[in-house]
Amino acid sequence: MKWHGWGHPHVTFPMEDKPDLWPFVREKLGMSRDLYHPAVKVEDIKLPANRLTDPKATLKELEALLGADRASIDDFQRLVHAFGKSFPDLWRARAGIVATAPDIIAWPASHEDVVAVIAWAKKNKVHVIPFGGGTNIAGALDVKEEAKLPVLSLDMRGMGRLLEMQQDSNLALLETGAVGPAIEEQLGQRGFSLGHFPDSFEFSTLGGWIATRSAGMQSDAYGRIEDMVQALHTVTSEHVLELKPFPATSAGPDLARPFIGSEGCFGIITRAWMRVHPIPASKRYVGYLFKTFEQGLAAVKACHEADIKPSLVRLQDEGETELAFNLKSPKPLLKSAVEFPVKKLLKTLGYTKPAIMVVGFEGSDQQTAHLASAAASIFKKHGGFPLGDSIGSAWSKDKYNTPYLRDYIMDYGGIADVAETSTTWGKLAELHGAVLAAVSVGCAEENLPGYVGCHLSHTYVTGGCLYFTWALQGGDKPLERYYRMKARVTDAIVAAGGTLSHHHAVGTEHLPWLAKEIGPGGEAMLGAFKKAFDPSDMFNPGGLTPQRIHPYLGTNRG
Amino acid sequence: MKWHGWGHPHVTFPMEDKPDLWPFVREKLGMSRDLYHPAVKVEDIKLPANRLTDPKATLKELEALLGADRASIDDFQRLVHAFGKSFPDLWRARAGIVATAPDIIAWPASHEDVVAVIAWAKKNKVHVIPFGGGTNIAGALDVKEEAKLPVLSLDMRGMGRLLEMQQDSNLALLETGAVGPAIEEQLGQRGFSLGHFPDSFEFSTLGGWIATRSAGMQSDAYGRIEDMVQALHTVTSEHVLELKPFPATSAGPDLARPFIGSEGCFGIITRAWMRVHPIPASKRYVGYLFKTFEQGLAAVKACHEADIKPSLVRLQDEGETELAFNLKSPKPLLKSAVEFPVKKLLKTLGYTKPAIMVVGFEGSDQQTAHLASAAASIFKKHGGFPLGDSIGSAWSKDKYNTPYLRDYIMDYGGIADVAETSTTWGKLAELHGAVLAAVSVGCAEENLPGYVGCHLSHTYVTGGCLYFTWALQGGDKPLERYYRMKARVTDAIVAAGGTLSHHHAVGTEHLPWLAKEIGPGGEAMLGAFKKAFDPSDMFNPGGLTPQRIHPYLGTNRG
Repeated sequence: MKWHGWGHPHVTFPMEDKPDLWPFVREKLGMSRDLYHPAVKVEDIKLPANRLTDPKATLKELEALLGADRASIDDFQRLVHAFGKSFPDLWRARAGIVATAPDIIAWPASHEDVVAVIAWAKKNKVHVIPFGGGTNIAGALDVKEEAKLPVLSLDMRGMGRLLEMQQDSNLALLETGAVGPAIEEQLGQRGFSLGHFPDSFEFSTLGGWIATRSAGMQSDAYGRIEDMVQALHTVTSEHVLELKPFPATSAGPDLARPFIGSEGCFGIITRAWMRVHPIPASKRYVGYLFKTFEQGLAAVKACHEADIKPSLVRLQDEGETELAFNLKSPKPLLKSAVEFPVKKLLKTLGYTKPAIMVVGFEGSDQQTAHLASAAASIFKKHGGFPLGDSIGSAWSKDKYNTPYLRDYIMDYGGIADVAETSTTWGKLAELHGAVLAAVSVGCAEENLPGYVGCHLSHTYVTGGCLYFTWALQGGDKPLERYYRMKARVTDAIVAAGGTLSHHHAVGTEHLPWLAKEIGPGGEAMLGAFKKAFDPSDMFNPGGLTPQRIHPYLGTNRG
Repeated sequence: MKWHGWGHPHVTFPMEDKPDLWPFVREKLGMSRDLYHPAVKVEDIKLPANRLTDPKATLKELEALLGADRASIDDFQRLVHAFGKSFPDLWRARAGIVATAPDIIAWPASHEDVVAVIAWAKKNKVHVIPFGGGTNIAGALDVKEEAKLPVLSLDMRGMGRLLEMQQDSNLALLETGAVGPAIEEQLGQRGFSLGHFPDSFEFSTLGGWIATRSAGMQSDAYGRIEDMVQALHTVTSEHVLELKPFPATSAGPDLARPFIGSEGCFGIITRAWMRVHPIPASKRYVGYLFKTFEQGLAAVKACHEADIKPSLVRLQDEGETELAFNLKSPKPLLKSAVEFPVKKLLKTLGYTKPAIMVVGFEGSDQQTAHLASAAASIFKKHGGFPLGDSIGSAWSKDKYNTPYLRDYIMDYGGIADVAETSTTWGKLAELHGAVLAAVSVGCAEENLPGYVGCHLSHTYVTGGCLYFTWALQGGDKPLERYYRMKARVTDAIVAAGGTLSHHHAVGTEHLPWLAKEIGPGGEAMLGAFKKAFDPSDMFNPGGLTPQRIHPYLGTNRG
């Protein structure tokens, strides 16, 4: 991945087929060409000194343990393992500010390697931060100042095998360093799919998904990652756990659970028995247009009430719909499929705050036909105007590209961030309004234009996830402005009854609000977990510790 | 409930409409009238001395804390709170052997009461065993010899209120002492249902379900209890936890999870935010007959593969089908609906090892019709012969009565027990055969006739639950014979890849096998949980401790 941006080093957001997009963004944020603000050169970055007493000797030790080329003290490796992809991570990287970094990186190739490395780390008093795809945008991967000892970054990507399948029983045992495409490819050869497709799918790993309680785009059909996990194998400084994949059990509490959402703070998740499913015969993505976001919300809720379950729902509010219109390609197909009916509707039917929805159906041909038709009649009742299949295909084509867009904005000194939460159906509309207002007030206070948009995705019978994107100019002190805005947005989410994160985890960025969310009892329990699994604070020190003082946000907000 | 048997004191298994049943059972087990073996009189039972220094003074203290009549040191109350409903529990009760009992019982009326009682218990160095319906059949409620201090039985049934509903979001906040009917009644008044119907539904409590990771009869549609829990409030000796019911969150690990399946060993679950659903418009139970149990298994699996989900599947093997035939009523309706086609099939089509299946569908009229018809064509392909609705109604009528049947057998000195497990689809048939063989070999070794039957219920895309019932004569030393048989059955389950329990919990009866099931790492983690949540071993001492030496089974079997 890029050391200071999203994704493949030679890939950028595909602008060539979206001539209106960049002008729209620049205009929205009041950005001009003279704000161009390139990143420093990687060779100019000065990393903190290696804290290992004898880095080369330690390197040799680890290579002896794991094999040649399975460890590194190289500066570039230290740099790319020093943080994830949060705005502060990338802003600091672009500015050449790297205050903390791991001292050594290791690539284990098996569960047994991990057992050996952790025993080595315990003996040698070294912190360990597990590293998957490095895509976390909440700061979960950052080497924090609580790391008082040398830090080993354990890059899991050398462990990506499908080890065993019970096809009859829809079960697969996977190594947790497997990245999304490798998982789908290995399962796909056997006709199966995991069905977990987060935005970061191309880079992020199974272990990262589990450690952050991730949810993918098709979670409405296949569940969140925690719903798919049937059993885990883990290595802590104290125990090696190898649970069995029973379909269900009441033999005591689920011992795998504390690791789901543990953000690398308790130990290493090495292997996971995952529930998989045969690749569906039929996949269909269609578009609808609603007069308002609220109308779309009601339509999606009505689907749940009728037990009609799309695999994916992505309902975009006015802000995101405006952005989506500017994503349009000049190709005739999309022109006729989207632009024409949309414009017509906007004009003649009074769609003043339009909300586009992409909805997906997966299953047998019969099932997708049944679901699509049942959903169509519900959406129609709620004022949804069908936009056909092309908008769905357009969305699907670019579905992993959105994160690249931020790099353009950062090139011009801008700030762009996302904030996602979930709340119950009864509170969704209010929370949506509250966050839009918070960004709007925030931009006014910063005396700047800005962008905010939102989509509903990942829905449940009890509620859904709202995913906000906001952006504005960075000015002289972008990091401070970012944290002011982040605080406004998160305060609004918490006040309106949303959780700190629906699928991005706590990291450093949401930590100041965690104590409020889980209460004093929850905080004490989290502390008890940590003491039980990681008494020597070996793993990801400073993570999931609500009393940690955030340099900008302080502690215990909300 | 009866102090030495199942259910309401004045209710017995309804035999009057099943003239063939009792003769069938007696014949199967070789039982005769002269084996009649009544329980001792309750007034002849001598309880162990109360271990409180001054029981009356303590009683006054607790009454001052909770209100008059909210505590008791009465012998009958001590007796009925001393154990659950396992075979050993009831056999000892009938024989008048009560070696351990709680010293005082308290009935809190609110979360705040529980906070006060636990603080009192901590200060006064008293063990606490939470008590729900008292229906656990794995020994989870037994006062064990590890209880070195006086024991308080905390009877939660004074806390049964529906406290809050978010109907819009299918959420209900319930006190955990609510028994099944009280939950359904309170929710039903608002048009909702929890949908959790274990065999013990009439007596057991929400808290008991959560503490034992229960699954109810309709779990295929509405999930296991752990799938329904959205958030818990708990009181331990160290913390008070009050989590919020977000639809989903990635803000750290799920802190409620360790309590699900905690069997009273970590603390008290006081309130639960539960996912509920509107009462379905349509419910339909229909019967099928398969030539073999294995054929039925394949048919159910095919349903999952086609994503056709009944709310309930109960596929009975040859042994249970024979029992079911003897459950038939002499009423004309059932005669024509079941007996006639069954007999005809048996004769003309070679159904030599017939397997009856009851399958349920719930939802809108349209959905149940769609599901029933889709399932029918799958079952037909797998050789299922439709038996119509009456067998389903007959099953539904008696669905909570089966546990009463054991009392008849015990009246004649017999042993009857159930063993349930889950395993993956690929192993179900083999596990089924292995357990039948184990009972068969066991009966031969005991030189006695016996009964064994099994049904499949609670199915998942990864596998299902097998529920075995076995019975034989007790002889001179019924408890020792019981434990020999229990060991044979459980050894067979474990060897064939089944879990110790799918929904009855570990208790005392499965504890000797737990270390094998969860491995050394799991055992260490369980110990770490206990130390974190209950450092003074206040709660249910001896529970969930794999190294505990079982008086008959020893330790670390399997």
